[in-house]
Amino acid sequence: MQGLMMDLPMLLSRLIDYAADHHGETEVVSRQINGSVERSNWRAVRSRSKQLAKSLLAAGFNSSTHFSSLTWNTINHLEVFYGVLGIGSPLHTLNPRLTVQDLCYMIELMEDKVCFYDSDTQPLAEEIDRHTDFITQWIYLDEGEDLPASTLRNYMSLSMLKDGVDDQFEWPVFDERDAATVCFTSGTTGRPKGVAYSHRSLTLCAMNMTMVDMYGSARNGELVCAMPVAPIFHANGWMMPFSAPMNGHKLVLPGRDFSPAAIVELISQEGVTIAGAVPTVWNDIIATADNSNISLPSLSTALVAGTAIPEKLYDLLEGRGMGVRTTWGMTEVPGATRASLPPTAGDADKANIRNIALNRQGRVGFQADLRIIDGNGNRLPHDGVASGILQVRGPIVAARYVGELESQSVDWLDTGDIAVIYPDSTIQIVDRAKDVIKSGGEWISSPQLEAAAVSHPSVNLAAAVATPHPRWQERPFLLCTLNTGNTVTADELRLHMAKSLAKWWLPEDIKFIDEMPLTATGKINKVRLRELYVQVDAIQQQA
Amino acid sequence: MQGLMMDLPMLLSRLIDYAADHHGETEVVSRQINGSVERSNWRAVRSRSKQLAKSLLAAGFNSSTHFSSLTWNTINHLEVFYGVLGIGSPLHTLNPRLTVQDLCYMIELMEDKVCFYDSDTQPLAEEIDRHTDFITQWIYLDEGEDLPASTLRNYMSLSMLKDGVDDQFEWPVFDERDAATVCFTSGTTGRPKGVAYSHRSLTLCAMNMTMVDMYGSARNGELVCAMPVAPIFHANGWMMPFSAPMNGHKLVLPGRDFSPAAIVELISQEGVTIAGAVPTVWNDIIATADNSNISLPSLSTALVAGTAIPEKLYDLLEGRGMGVRTTWGMTEVPGATRASLPPTAGDADKANIRNIALNRQGRVGFQADLRIIDGNGNRLPHDGVASGILQVRGPIVAARYVGELESQSVDWLDTGDIAVIYPDSTIQIVDRAKDVIKSGGEWISSPQLEAAAVSHPSVNLAAAVATPHPRWQERPFLLCTLNTGNTVTADELRLHMAKSLAKWWLPEDIKFIDEMPLTATGKINKVRLRELYVQVDAIQQQA
Repeated sequence: MQGLMMDLPMLLSRLIDYAADHHGETEVVSRQINGSVERSNWRAVRSRSKQLAKSLLAAGFNSSTHFSSLTWNTINHLEVFYGVLGIGSPLHTLNPRLTVQDLCYMIELMEDKVCFYDSDTQPLAEEIDRHTDFITQWIYLDEGEDLPASTLRNYMSLSMLKDGVDDQFEWPVFDERDAATVCFTSGTTGRPKGVAYSHRSLTLCAMNMTMVDMYGSARNGELVCAMPVAPIFHANGWMMPFSAPMNGHKLVLPGRDFSPAAIVELISQEGVTIAGAVPTVWNDIIATADNSNISLPSLSTALVAGTAIPEKLYDLLEGRGMGVRTTWGMTEVPGATRASLPPTAGDADKANIRNIALNRQGRVGFQADLRIIDGNGNRLPHDGVASGILQVRGPIVAARYVGELESQSVDWLDTGDIAVIYPDSTIQIVDRAKDVIKSGGEWISSPQLEAAAVSHPSVNLAAAVATPHPRWQERPFLLCTLNTGNTVTADELRLHMAKSLAKWWLPEDIKFIDEMPLTATGKINKVRLRELYVQVDAIQQQA
Repeated sequence: MQGLMMDLPMLLSRLIDYAADHHGETEVVSRQINGSVERSNWRAVRSRSKQLAKSLLAAGFNSSTHFSSLTWNTINHLEVFYGVLGIGSPLHTLNPRLTVQDLCYMIELMEDKVCFYDSDTQPLAEEIDRHTDFITQWIYLDEGEDLPASTLRNYMSLSMLKDGVDDQFEWPVFDERDAATVCFTSGTTGRPKGVAYSHRSLTLCAMNMTMVDMYGSARNGELVCAMPVAPIFHANGWMMPFSAPMNGHKLVLPGRDFSPAAIVELISQEGVTIAGAVPTVWNDIIATADNSNISLPSLSTALVAGTAIPEKLYDLLEGRGMGVRTTWGMTEVPGATRASLPPTAGDADKANIRNIALNRQGRVGFQADLRIIDGNGNRLPHDGVASGILQVRGPIVAARYVGELESQSVDWLDTGDIAVIYPDSTIQIVDRAKDVIKSGGEWISSPQLEAAAVSHPSVNLAAAVATPHPRWQERPFLLCTLNTGNTVTADELRLHMAKSLAKWWLPEDIKFIDEMPLTATGKINKVRLRELYVQVDAIQQQA
């Protein structure tokens, strides 16, 4: 028997319509590329998006045009999101931190025809334009100024495009399974791989992000103000450009200035209640706030993902009264786990909550099922002991990558992580499959080594990588940066680490370096570390 | 461009799978029909459901078999929910409080072939069986006892059906738009009307129910324990049989004993954190707890719907430290509004929150858009002043009723309510367009009362209006004119009406008047009737 409910597809245009119709006055605040802070609201964002959508169609583009963007977390980018997605076209968000070679590869794979750029990314856009003929129209996201001269072959400004076009426009209706945004993985192995989110999957992702148990203590207040500290081109800034309008939350966009000082200023001035960032970024935010005596009283929830949160950072955040919520996800499945605590950890049990926040990466949620398998594809128990390859499945999970055939779709996506799943369905990422150190047939977890190292008061960041060893196959090699003015010897550090680790895990080689190479997402760049500090023949042997 | 995400339909079997796989030990507690309390968990509920599904298929039933249930809020009913829905069959939940005539009408309209009943509803089942040939298989929901003898033509027990069948069963995959549960409205005008929820709409409803801003202060703790005090046959017990497994919450089912003492006992013994009920029921719960000196410390959230919450009750609930969340919905759109506070009402502003809880019925949420129109279909502003016919639209809203043609589907569903929408998108229901009488959370249809009255040979015209009642909120007040020269007493008329109506529908107050005020179009003028015969202060109190 057929259900008799209204058959409305889950299109992202419904999000901006909802926000504009029912939370029209709720603020959207953006630090622009030029440094100014623009204050707007959801009604105005929809108006701008509709005007853009209408202008794009008038200019001859349509739902089969592939768009890309080379810009930061600004309101202009948000307008492009809803304007482009609203007409059913995919928007490929390019990461300006990547190389021209990688960007051209992605553009050509996606067959992008139009690209939005800004005053910051203009030189990069010009370089791309010299390397590929795919982009036939460049659109400058102006902020009130004149269109700057450029070597781009065909460019205009957003204002020129929209000139004389009003916002009287009805969003078209199409299949909710059509592509919406496209994000590429950082490509730590081989070429970057493109994930084509559908309108359906992003709507479900945004719902998932804001369900009970996810939004942390921001749930205590109704005045939610969300800030994506992650760039929008990373898994859509952890979905906040979608979850904020879906819930009528205030949205604060930090532009291109991710410096701790700028972020702290925005949190403080705009009353941000929830922000999501990787631990290194949180470290910087708290250090900067401390140094400037800024207390950030509004900030009630710190969403932490990317890597495990160090003890020191957890205590700092909690000490400031924030609810720390650790979650886990990847480009292929954003917000994969719920940042919820297991049923055994009530509010009364602070020590237990701390332990879980430090050692688990969230809990399996309804939209993304998780399992672990061994090397032969056999399922392993969720007993808190067995560790295996983490796989994920659900309507918010990528089935295949851009350019792959339908026959290459998978039922369970291999995450590339090694994990333990506990009986309460919290998960612990033990290692990246490719970062795991195999010593004498046993696994040594690099994150656990690193956590033990940074728990030393002098150590700022630590990274463990494998080096080849004639007897043990591989042994850990630890690289550390120290806190300013601090010192520690390798022996002292090993002695400290021995308190929490098995002896055979302790690295024989420890090196103190001045600067830790980071990826565009703020994670430690182990590929670069290996290039710099591990012998080439060793890398080859490892691969 | 096509999105490249996994194409998994939103089937309700995924909810029970999720709960069993990841919250398997989380309790499901049920007061059974026989009064005993059964303790189980999500793993066991899935096991029972799978066993039932497999048994039904083995017995020759399939996804085109229409099932119905005539029972209460027990774990057996929950098992039937997932067992029947899991194989893609619709489950029509009958309300045992209705008349045999109405129940037979619904069964025949739905073409139900199988019906589940229990020891409490057996006499009603037998009466139905005497009136209709549609049900060819009755299945007794036994609670360990032997199958009681019955006049039913073809009956067996659940245990007999499942005898020798194991739980090794894979849920089939089908269209998420297929019908899941079917609930009938109480039929304020004419016959009851059936709403056929789809798997898609119920999944979205359950997500909606548990998004940020809805679950109230239950969000402060992770140990959510939900109890549907509303019977499951009313809009699926406000969705808790779906939202609880979706979130791994503990679920407490009160069986058929909705007496305040029984409810208070369960809340206290099981640590219920969130319960949903109409104001009269909340009143009884608090009074009973007070009289027994039970403090109910676990209960952190009181979801209130059905009718506006009286001031006194609000203060009582808040005084006990509960977060009161008022919401609004109807069979056609369960959980239509989010029980959230507007952005101007932060936690700091208690008086404002109180005012909104008392005078508004929630806020427009993402899944159900609301608008008001005038008699000519023109949209009215959301200015907190204009009042108009409330209409609703969204993927969780009924497009048409059972038995209607596809061409009868509507884009906006007329709720039959008159409402004001405020600029912050909170709504206030100011009147019921169709003069329905709400007694103790149940609807009494004034047209049906009137029809029963005028079916008496002496009665000429009859009009039922609501009068305020301290316990039941509203009771029907019947006004009649008699045919010339005829006489009838109130008691005689009530006796006559009892032949076709449930006892609790019968009006205590019946008044015979000389002339019925009519509108210009010849319809009974209820506005004038109320002016003439219902106490003014009562009306004001009501408004």
